Amino acid sequence: MYYDVIQRMAASLHNLHNILEKAEAHAEARKFDAANLLATRLAPDMFPLTRQIQVAADNAKFATARLTGKEAPRDPDDETTIPQLKERLQRTIAFIQSAQPADFDGAAEREARLGFLPGLYMTGHDYLIQFAVPNFYFHLTAAYAILRSSGVELGKRDFIGEITLHPDK
Amino acid sequence: MYYDVIQRMAASLHNLHNILEKAEAHAEARKFDAANLLATRLAPDMFPLTRQIQVAADNAKFATARLTGKEAPRDPDDETTIPQLKERLQRTIAFIQSAQPADFDGAAEREARLGFLPGLYMTGHDYLIQFAVPNFYFHLTAAYAILRSSGVELGKRDFIGEITLHPDK
Repeated sequence: MYYDVIQRMAASLHNLHNILEKAEAHAEARKFDAANLLATRLAPDMFPLTRQIQVAADNAKFATARLTGKEAPRDPDDETTIPQLKERLQRTIAFIQSAQPADFDGAAEREARLGFLPGLYMTGHDYLIQFAVPNFYFHLTAAYAILRSSGVELGKRDFIGEITLHPDK
Repeated sequence: MYYDVIQRMAASLHNLHNILEKAEAHAEARKFDAANLLATRLAPDMFPLTRQIQVAADNAKFATARLTGKEAPRDPDDETTIPQLKERLQRTIAFIQSAQPADFDGAAEREARLGFLPGLYMTGHDYLIQFAVPNFYFHLTAAYAILRSSGVELGKRDFIGEITLHPDK
């Protein structure tokens, strides 16, 4: 289950990658620089698009690291263009996909520490359910909503992506 | 794990309930009718606040029903005020909390059917990870972002809510 939840984060980052490609196509059709979208915010005191994407990627990266004990690769957060952000997403997806099911043995009992809560930890189980997953989808949704409110033609399918369906027996 | 993920949805709806109380206090301080917030959208072709809240609640309700085999209570979607929406959330939380851990035995293998995908089903496992959880947090985030972009003083803590922390040994 831990492995599958984390791999779904990789799939969701792949959806975000595709959403960014739609944003690029939209900008090209409307003849403006796609990077103009990167400073857009849903509210003046919320993160702009660039940071929403970086934080979504970081949530998935750190969830993988904290639940497996693998070291998280460093990201300098210096992206200023959509191609750079797409590269960031692909780098993060590759890290997540490098984790194998066996790496998550004992994930429930691992101690997950958050930088802004010194001296405290969460169990891997609580961390995943209470913090990592809600926070990950929060930033993914914010990125989606910024682009949709900016006129990029997006639908819920772009957010959910591929799902595994079976025909009725 | 299934039980815990679903119970976290109840906790998240409780957070949304608290967020709506902050919206009511904000409206009262600014002397406008809090119901004025309910038609606000992040984009002209996205759901307004009322519908975001209803759909978030429905996602949690149907996830509970589909993974346990319990019948989902009916909701007529006729809320027009914040107190009515808070009642809807409390009703949904009570239904989720009525499910016991043993009700989720075999949840992974249950067949989950979505109304808009006739003739197809997802396994309970895939349904929870690929659809119910991302979609639930999508609508929760949209509701939060609508209120925050409308001037209600909210922070990420209001969205995440209580988390289970332990002091370092």
